[in-house]
Amino acid sequence: MKFEHPVSIQWLADFTGAEAVGNLEQQATGINEIHKVTPGDISFVDAEKYYNKCLHSAATIIIINKMVECPEGKTLLVIADPFTAYIKIVKHFRSFEPCTAMISDTAVVGNGTCIQPGVFIGNHVSIGENCIIHANVTINDHIIIGNNVIIHSGTVLGSDAFYFKRRKERDVQYEKMDSCGRVIVEDDVEIGACCAIDRGVSGDTIIGRGTKLDNQIHIGHGVVLGKNCLIAAQVAIAGKTILEDEVILWGQVGVNKDLTVGKGAVVYAQSGVASSIEGGKVYFGSPVGEAKAKMREMGWIRRIPEMWEKLSAK
Amino acid sequence: MKFEHPVSIQWLADFTGAEAVGNLEQQATGINEIHKVTPGDISFVDAEKYYNKCLHSAATIIIINKMVECPEGKTLLVIADPFTAYIKIVKHFRSFEPCTAMISDTAVVGNGTCIQPGVFIGNHVSIGENCIIHANVTINDHIIIGNNVIIHSGTVLGSDAFYFKRRKERDVQYEKMDSCGRVIVEDDVEIGACCAIDRGVSGDTIIGRGTKLDNQIHIGHGVVLGKNCLIAAQVAIAGKTILEDEVILWGQVGVNKDLTVGKGAVVYAQSGVASSIEGGKVYFGSPVGEAKAKMREMGWIRRIPEMWEKLSAK
Amino acid sequence: MKFEHPVSIQWLADFTGAEAVGNLEQQATGINEIHKVTPGDISFVDAEKYYNKCLHSAATIIIINKMVECPEGKTLLVIADPFTAYIKIVKHFRSFEPCTAMISDTAVVGNGTCIQPGVFIGNHVSIGENCIIHANVTINDHIIIGNNVIIHSGTVLGSDAFYFKRRKERDVQYEKMDSCGRVIVEDDVEIGACCAIDRGVSGDTIIGRGTKLDNQIHIGHGVVLGKNCLIAAQVAIAGKTILEDEVILWGQVGVNKDLTVGKGAVVYAQSGVASSIEGGKVYFGSPVGEAKAKMREMGWIRRIPEMWEKLSAK
Repeated sequence: MKFEHPVSIQWLADFTGAEAVGNLEQQATGINEIHKVTPGDISFVDAEKYYNKCLHSAATIIIINKMVECPEGKTLLVIADPFTAYIKIVKHFRSFEPCTAMISDTAVVGNGTCIQPGVFIGNHVSIGENCIIHANVTINDHIIIGNNVIIHSGTVLGSDAFYFKRRKERDVQYEKMDSCGRVIVEDDVEIGACCAIDRGVSGDTIIGRGTKLDNQIHIGHGVVLGKNCLIAAQVAIAGKTILEDEVILWGQVGVNKDLTVGKGAVVYAQSGVASSIEGGKVYFGSPVGEAKAKMREMGWIRRIPEMWEKLSAK
Repeated sequence: MKFEHPVSIQWLADFTGAEAVGNLEQQATGINEIHKVTPGDISFVDAEKYYNKCLHSAATIIIINKMVECPEGKTLLVIADPFTAYIKIVKHFRSFEPCTAMISDTAVVGNGTCIQPGVFIGNHVSIGENCIIHANVTINDHIIIGNNVIIHSGTVLGSDAFYFKRRKERDVQYEKMDSCGRVIVEDDVEIGACCAIDRGVSGDTIIGRGTKLDNQIHIGHGVVLGKNCLIAAQVAIAGKTILEDEVILWGQVGVNKDLTVGKGAVVYAQSGVASSIEGGKVYFGSPVGEAKAKMREMGWIRRIPEMWEKLSAK
Repeated sequence: MKFEHPVSIQWLADFTGAEAVGNLEQQATGINEIHKVTPGDISFVDAEKYYNKCLHSAATIIIINKMVECPEGKTLLVIADPFTAYIKIVKHFRSFEPCTAMISDTAVVGNGTCIQPGVFIGNHVSIGENCIIHANVTINDHIIIGNNVIIHSGTVLGSDAFYFKRRKERDVQYEKMDSCGRVIVEDDVEIGACCAIDRGVSGDTIIGRGTKLDNQIHIGHGVVLGKNCLIAAQVAIAGKTILEDEVILWGQVGVNKDLTVGKGAVVYAQSGVASSIEGGKVYFGSPVGEAKAKMREMGWIRRIPEMWEKLSAK
């Protein structure tokens, strides 16, 4: 997320109670998780094993739980609990804004677009031209929808990321990471009924141009679907995974978080994609392998009794 | 879909820009995909391998991309892109009709039926007697619901078929097949929460009398569920598949498109039905086999280490 | 379910047409399925194999289809069809109450709680303080929600149990068991988008304190989720199953009915939990085994060709 106006180091230190070291003159222009940071961003780190990655990322201001050497030109905000400081900043700059009307008067809707009854459109939403938003769809705050998009009934855009920090010492162990990211639906996308598409934690969830989603699909926070993908019913794609263009996932496929599915990959129904897979190939199984190898494997399993017989005969 | 009034060959040729040959005097009474056609229907074919099937189907008028010999009594509409011509006709006779009210004034609702708040009922919908339609259900246009039907909240009836023609040469590769079919829910059906039931592409999706659906079930376009079926939560049934009467599918089962599940078949949880299966039997696995054989197969897998040991000892 | 006022044996016998034997002076204070009964409750039994269990349960009044010896201090209501008598009583004391407003005026909502547009809140609902109920959520009758709860759009609380008695001799074979139970959502719970959480048949479905649910999760009737559980997207948990505290289920897991998942158990994605599993362990597969053993099993399967070669060489 980018801020509307730059924010001074002094204000950040005062607001969070952190000690600022390094370059105290620069200004923060946004806040992001480590894998989404760009120059000007605030990010946070609270585990030593990620110190190096975070300190040498594009982040300009780093909230950290230990005094370390500050990289040239950057700023450290040192505080015991960086996660809490990070969330406090997110909540300040993008707090939840309740709506009283079904369609917020901050929403912008293009010509030729039909909004059916029962549709909720939250704050700071933009919808392009010639779309059909079917009855009882929910479009939460900060969603951007292109032209010629069709969204079927019951679908939800912009639910929060399912992202928590576990604090085993507390009664309530899971602390919520507040989501400040968006959902961007590009032109010519169609989304089926009862889909749930989470917003990014700090970046964007993106449905690429011309991609078609069937019913009851789950798209986790920060997922990026390429162009001209075809996703069948009841597929679930976990957070931050990337599908390149022209990927085809058949029904009930599950895709793990933080991985890449290569261009034009085809995954058969009910398969589970546990790690990144190359494009241009056909996959099957849970966890997936190449479909031909999996089919052979299934043939071998059927031959076990024959092996046993042969073995016993020897 | 049947037209309200018969349509002349001349009008169809002018409207689509096709060249008409064969019987030019008859009239079209409807339009359908090839597997749903009845006499009087228009259908289309654009792949040579399906020419024969289409030309000798019950269709009376065939939109085709090549001049071929016209079967006795039929009419050909010859045009370079039959798919586009077919869609143009569908859009003309059943275009999307926006609604401004939560309940269209064309909807008919029977005595003793309770419509809870937040329910959307589109155009040309008929609901029988003594039904309960729970809050926030969506019933789109051209849906027929019988008597004593219960539909739980969040469920969507009549979302569009997930059916596209791929045009690899275009920027936006998937061209939408517009759906003009209906959903028919027979008497004494109960449908759980957050289900998504697509309309047929040109024919009807049917939920047979006394069939009970649990939550979050996906029913694809043109699926026919028999009478007294029991479908557990999160099952997905792909387009045009037929379940005969008294089929039981346990949770999270997936059923492929275009197949038949025989009367009284039982499919255990998480199984995947990849091709047609006989009635009266119990199935398990992905892809399914008969449950007993699958159980034995799993037993054999557990004996592999023993085999290996025996083999190494020889 | 407990009644608002005690009910006499005489009234029950007259209302259902049953013959009362045993203690005719006591009063019924509630009605429950056999596994939920407490003293004062009515329960029913219609299969001889369950007679013993029901007659010696905590139930005070038993509707039964055969004259048997009445246990000391209890009451039998003898009638040909106990199921029908049981449902008749349930319907009388907790009949469906239609709503005309999106928010029933019997609903109680705490301070600091935000109810977004399009939310339905039925009769006799209580929602605590500082909650966010997102747009187009459905909260049916008799639901209790604690403090600091977040519920995302499209989610349904309190759909009916998927529970039917099969009557093969009838045209409509499945007779509905009317649900009179509730859903209780404890403090600090978050529930994702498009989830469906059924009410208990006669007892309560409970989501324990601090438990977090992702999108599109199905929770069956009477399920009890412990505290601080983490349930990923598209999980389905069937009726009356108990998850102890701190259980983690990854995406698309299915859990069978009537079983217990021990404290701190972790189940990997797409697994199927067919019977009860111990806490503190990691599971995988459908049906699940311990993850390490399952991984070894998958390794053995890949070695079958090697075994075959070795076997052929001998």
